[in-house]
Amino acid sequence: MSGAKQILITGGTGFAGSHLAEYLLAKQPDMGVHLTSLGTEKERLPVTLHAAVLHKIDLTNFEQTKELFQEIQPTEIYHLAALAEVGSSFVQAAKITAVNMQLQLSVLTALQEVVPTARLLVVGSALEYGKVSLDELPITERQPFRPLNPYAVSKVAQDLLGYAFAESYGLQILRVRAFNHTGERQTTAFAIPSFAEQIVKIERGEQTEIRVGNLEAIRDILDVKDVVRAYEVVMQRGKVGEVYNIGSGVGVSMRSVLDLLIQHATTQITVTFDPDRLRPADIPELRADIRKITALGWQAEIPLQDTVQGILSFWRSQT
Amino acid sequence: MSGAKQILITGGTGFAGSHLAEYLLAKQPDMGVHLTSLGTEKERLPVTLHAAVLHKIDLTNFEQTKELFQEIQPTEIYHLAALAEVGSSFVQAAKITAVNMQLQLSVLTALQEVVPTARLLVVGSALEYGKVSLDELPITERQPFRPLNPYAVSKVAQDLLGYAFAESYGLQILRVRAFNHTGERQTTAFAIPSFAEQIVKIERGEQTEIRVGNLEAIRDILDVKDVVRAYEVVMQRGKVGEVYNIGSGVGVSMRSVLDLLIQHATTQITVTFDPDRLRPADIPELRADIRKITALGWQAEIPLQDTVQGILSFWRSQT
Repeated sequence: MSGAKQILITGGTGFAGSHLAEYLLAKQPDMGVHLTSLGTEKERLPVTLHAAVLHKIDLTNFEQTKELFQEIQPTEIYHLAALAEVGSSFVQAAKITAVNMQLQLSVLTALQEVVPTARLLVVGSALEYGKVSLDELPITERQPFRPLNPYAVSKVAQDLLGYAFAESYGLQILRVRAFNHTGERQTTAFAIPSFAEQIVKIERGEQTEIRVGNLEAIRDILDVKDVVRAYEVVMQRGKVGEVYNIGSGVGVSMRSVLDLLIQHATTQITVTFDPDRLRPADIPELRADIRKITALGWQAEIPLQDTVQGILSFWRSQT
Repeated sequence: MSGAKQILITGGTGFAGSHLAEYLLAKQPDMGVHLTSLGTEKERLPVTLHAAVLHKIDLTNFEQTKELFQEIQPTEIYHLAALAEVGSSFVQAAKITAVNMQLQLSVLTALQEVVPTARLLVVGSALEYGKVSLDELPITERQPFRPLNPYAVSKVAQDLLGYAFAESYGLQILRVRAFNHTGERQTTAFAIPSFAEQIVKIERGEQTEIRVGNLEAIRDILDVKDVVRAYEVVMQRGKVGEVYNIGSGVGVSMRSVLDLLIQHATTQITVTFDPDRLRPADIPELRADIRKITALGWQAEIPLQDTVQGILSFWRSQT
C-alpha cells in the first residue's frame, strides 16, 4: 500500500459517486478505491463496483470518520456525500442543513488532523448561484450566491467551509460547482429520468401518456460520465483553493430534451401537462462559463443524444 | 395592542441587543418591546431594560419559537440571536454552525407561518467577507464571501437563508452586515474592552502593564449605539431583500485605538507585547463602503474618542 494512491469517494454509492468509482476503477484497475455509503441508497450499483472497498459509515460522526481516514490513509478524497433536497418543511430543512454542515466539518477536520497532505475535492452545485438574471449569463465562478432554498444554502456552506479550511490550514482542497447532470441510475426525482421512466412505461403499455411540468427552463446539462471525468481532471490538475464550474457551456431547453427522448421511443408518445408539476421557473436559464475547467484540458465528450439513449436503455433494463 | 407596533429583539440581552432595546425604549417609551434571551448571558443589563418584556427561550426549538410569535404577534423583528465564536475544535465548530443554522431556519419559518407581513432584520457580519485584499477596499455589499472559519461560514449561511426566504416566499426581510463595533458591556473577548479593562486594573494598582497582541490591523470601528441606530433606519426605510453594510467607512489601526485609551487613563500605562496574543493578522485592513446605508439617511455620530471614554467609564464602574 505504501506510496500508492489510495482513493476515497464519499457518497460512493450515490448517483455521481458510483459513476466516478466505475471510471476510476476502469482507468487504473490496480488502484485502491474506497467508497463510503450511509447504506440507505436503493441498490442499483453496477457490478464493476465490487472491485472497490465499501465502508458503511455516517460521516456526521467525527470519530468514525477519523478512524476511517486513519485506516485507509487516503491520498485523494472525492467528497461527494451530502443529503439531497427532500422537502421544504422546517424539520426537513433543519435536517438537511445540519447534516450537510456537520459532515463537511467532520470530513475537513479529519483531513486536517489525519492526512493533511492529501488532496480533497469539495463538490458544490449550480444551485448555489440560485437566482441568475439573463444578463449575468454565462455564469462565472465569481457570480454572487443567491440560493433559493435551505438545501442550496447548505451547499454554499459546504463550499465555503472548503475555502476556509484551505485558506486557514493550508490544506490541498479543490472545489467544483456542478451544473445539471444526468445519466443511468439517476432517480426519477429529477426531470429527465422521470421522462424516460414514463416513456418506457408507455412502451410497455403500462401508461398511456407522459405527464410533464414547465418545459421552458433552459439548463446546462452534462452526462454524468463527463462530469466525473471533470472531477478527476480537477483532482489531478486543479489549483489548490480554486473553484471550477463543471458544465457544458451550452443552454438546452427542457422541451428539446423531452423531444430527443420521444424521438428515441419505440412507440408514439402523447405529452400532457400536469398542473401539479407546473412550478414557476424561478430561473429561466442556467449556463456555465467553463473557461476555467476547459483551461485544465477537459471538455465534454458525450452528445446529449447518446446520454438520452443511455437513460432510456437503463429504464428498459429495469423490471 | 391592536394596530400598535410590537417589536421583538432576539438575543435582546446580548451586547448589541441590549443597546438596541435601550435605544428603542428611549425613542418611543409606549412601544411594546419584547426581548428573547437564552438566559445564559452574564447579567450586566441596564436598568432601563425593565420596561421591556423578557422571554427566556431557545430559538433552535421551532415549536417554542412559533408559540412566541403567536403570542406576541410582532410587527418588527430585530433578529440578533446567534452563537458567537467560541473556539476551533470540531465539537465547537459543529455546535456553532448547527445552532446558527437551526435558529435561523426556526425564526424565518415562524415568520413565514405566523406573521408573514412583519418586517425582519437579519444581522450579519463583516466576517462573512473574510479575506479581503487591499485593492478590494472599501468593501461593497457585492464583495465575494471568503470566510476564514466555521463561525464566519455560519454567518454567511444565516445571511443567505434570509435572502432565500425573502426571495422564495415574498417575506419582508432586510439584511445588514455589521463591521466592528464596540461600547459599554462588550466582553473582554474583544480587543478594545480587553485593553480598557486592563487599563482600569492598572489605574487601581491591580496590574502593572497592559499586554497586547498584534496592533497593525486596520479596522472599521463604530460605536454600538451608532450601529443600533443604523439597524432601526434599515428596519424603517431599508428596501426588502437588500443588504446593507454598517460601518464608519474609515479605517483605524488598533494601535491608534490603544493610544486613545491610554490618553484617557488616569495613570501612566506601560504596554508590552504578549506572544500568546500575537496571532497573524489574516486581513490587514477592513473598511466598509457605506454608500447604501448612507443613502437611507444614516450617518455615524459618535466620535471614537467618546466611545473609548464610555468604555473606560464602564470598566471603572465595575467592581
